[in-house]
Amino acid sequence: MSPARPRARAPASRSRIPPRALLARAARVRLVLLDVDGVLTDGRLYYGAEGELMKAFDVKDGHGIVLLRDHVDFGVISGRSGKATQRRLEELRVKHLIFGQLDKLAGYAQLAHLGLADEEVAYMGDDVNDLPLLRRVGLSGAPADARPEVQAAVHFVARGGGGRGAVRELCDLIAAAKGLTHGR
Amino acid sequence: MSPARPRARAPASRSRIPPRALLARAARVRLVLLDVDGVLTDGRLYYGAEGELMKAFDVKDGHGIVLLRDHVDFGVISGRSGKATQRRLEELRVKHLIFGQLDKLAGYAQLAHLGLADEEVAYMGDDVNDLPLLRRVGLSGAPADARPEVQAAVHFVARGGGGRGAVRELCDLIAAAKGLTHGR
Amino acid sequence: MSPARPRARAPASRSRIPPRALLARAARVRLVLLDVDGVLTDGRLYYGAEGELMKAFDVKDGHGIVLLRDHVDFGVISGRSGKATQRRLEELRVKHLIFGQLDKLAGYAQLAHLGLADEEVAYMGDDVNDLPLLRRVGLSGAPADARPEVQAAVHFVARGGGGRGAVRELCDLIAAAKGLTHGR
Amino acid sequence: MSPARPRARAPASRSRIPPRALLARAARVRLVLLDVDGVLTDGRLYYGAEGELMKAFDVKDGHGIVLLRDHVDFGVISGRSGKATQRRLEELRVKHLIFGQLDKLAGYAQLAHLGLADEEVAYMGDDVNDLPLLRRVGLSGAPADARPEVQAAVHFVARGGGGRGAVRELCDLIAAAKGLTHGR
Repeated sequence: MSPARPRARAPASRSRIPPRALLARAARVRLVLLDVDGVLTDGRLYYGAEGELMKAFDVKDGHGIVLLRDHVDFGVISGRSGKATQRRLEELRVKHLIFGQLDKLAGYAQLAHLGLADEEVAYMGDDVNDLPLLRRVGLSGAPADARPEVQAAVHFVARGGGGRGAVRELCDLIAAAKGLTHGR
Repeated sequence: MSPARPRARAPASRSRIPPRALLARAARVRLVLLDVDGVLTDGRLYYGAEGELMKAFDVKDGHGIVLLRDHVDFGVISGRSGKATQRRLEELRVKHLIFGQLDKLAGYAQLAHLGLADEEVAYMGDDVNDLPLLRRVGLSGAPADARPEVQAAVHFVARGGGGRGAVRELCDLIAAAKGLTHGR
Repeated sequence: MSPARPRARAPASRSRIPPRALLARAARVRLVLLDVDGVLTDGRLYYGAEGELMKAFDVKDGHGIVLLRDHVDFGVISGRSGKATQRRLEELRVKHLIFGQLDKLAGYAQLAHLGLADEEVAYMGDDVNDLPLLRRVGLSGAPADARPEVQAAVHFVARGGGGRGAVRELCDLIAAAKGLTHGR
Repeated sequence: MSPARPRARAPASRSRIPPRALLARAARVRLVLLDVDGVLTDGRLYYGAEGELMKAFDVKDGHGIVLLRDHVDFGVISGRSGKATQRRLEELRVKHLIFGQLDKLAGYAQLAHLGLADEEVAYMGDDVNDLPLLRRVGLSGAPADARPEVQAAVHFVARGGGGRGAVRELCDLIAAAKGLTHGR
């Protein structure tokens, strides 16, 4: 399956390394880690009188996870906590949920028991506190509206923004690299 | 009534078949089927602590259904369930509601008792699981922000996105093909 | 640049009549009537399990009404009802609230006791059912994302969309025509 | 490309004074004051049956405040009140909260006990009632979707809109001017 493209002829993403190298990195991925706010959402935090009220996730991002989750594990490392996120991720059967961890490398260390090499891990983040982990993993990605420092540091920048298709593009890139097709 | 156009002079949609053939297909439609998330909504799934909280529908899409529903039947086939959708669709008097059906052909089979030919059915979808049904019906459409695989497979691509006018354009295309005018 | 973000140098709107004629019409306005969904909001209808849950209004639109309401009366004619709208409009001290009236001319007739001439009334609407009233009043306007039939029929089209500044532009046009300034 | 998505190479903002002068002003700032609706949010006011229901804040804006708050104090002056805002700002440990004050100079006067010179204060606002305070402080900023009168009056206009990165840009400008780096 080809990676996400708004138009049929447009390139899949703004790859910052040669496409062949990007596919080689994606083919090795066995665990996809995601930031939540700004990656699985568009970064909007909806507050009511009692505090945070809800988050908006994207149906196509979710579908990308569903299509790939039998082949690759998923997890999130989020600086915030929140039941809304938990409800959505449980529905998507995302295995590894690490909340309240602004230090993403520390969150990553909590997954050491999985015994994966850094090269087998993908991470998508959007802000400066994601940089250390983005620099460590085998495949790093960022939404189109990530901080410019982050866009400059990752292997590929999605054409879609956070909560608007960026995660789907990451999923589709990995699916393509692994030769998976989605029943077409 | 002329089909939907963001600007007065712009073409109604990106027709992937000759306009005359598109109108001929639209003129035969007696049942309009719609996907929900990403078609009747912009794909955002709002989650709170208790799970999915709400969906955002578009007032102009709804008006398009209201203007056409005396001439054509409407239905939805959705992979998800949800009371929010049900409330909105009941208000719009949409007749056929099929929820929890990711396999859209199976959902379509539940409507076999209507005795309609495939050529009398229109369907609008936005993701890869919509492709089998999109390929089967007489008139297939997609929002402007549908997956590229879907945009490449349908008879016409709306200029508006899901939950932002795509359904209105489908309604207006059918109204125009049937020579209906909305009291202008 | 998106039409929703006017730059300082850009004209306030796409006037469909000569600017001088537009200002002359605006100067006579004593009552501003507004549609709600798609004009005071961006047309999104948020539904939860119990039905419509909320509406999103724009702070700058509201400020435009506040700045003008001592000089001109305001009212809404909406095809829908809803407590959310009522709460917002009461806060803005909008005087005339007509709900549940899809036939806008009929809604307008309910204001006959005000004894205003059509030339003293402005109306902003976004869909085909607004056309009869738009054609009747002295000053007609539409948001940037109004139906094309509506954009073609009004005296001026705002650069901002519904719920994103269109109402503010109408208010500022009338204020300018009347020689009012907002403490600048 | 929308101004809300800075590219790595693009300048951080549309400076209306020479960049060197802008940095000199930013370097002196000891207190950052912010408007709420349209600056910390995109200006959408979500109303339910009971009145205002929620506000949407931006995760990256919040992160900018967190990264800078040990070096500079923060405060808001808002024409509206609201528990939603309070909850978010307490979470961000914003020190000075002035609500219900449409007259921003009067709100500013409530902070006289801090003993700061105007040159040590930054303010970001988006509407005409923000102009008097914007003209008074040492560093004035506006979101990309501020009223044109405001954009014309400030020292710098952010590339992002209100609730979509404008506040982050202000924070990053001050951090850069003070020679602070965020662990990059």
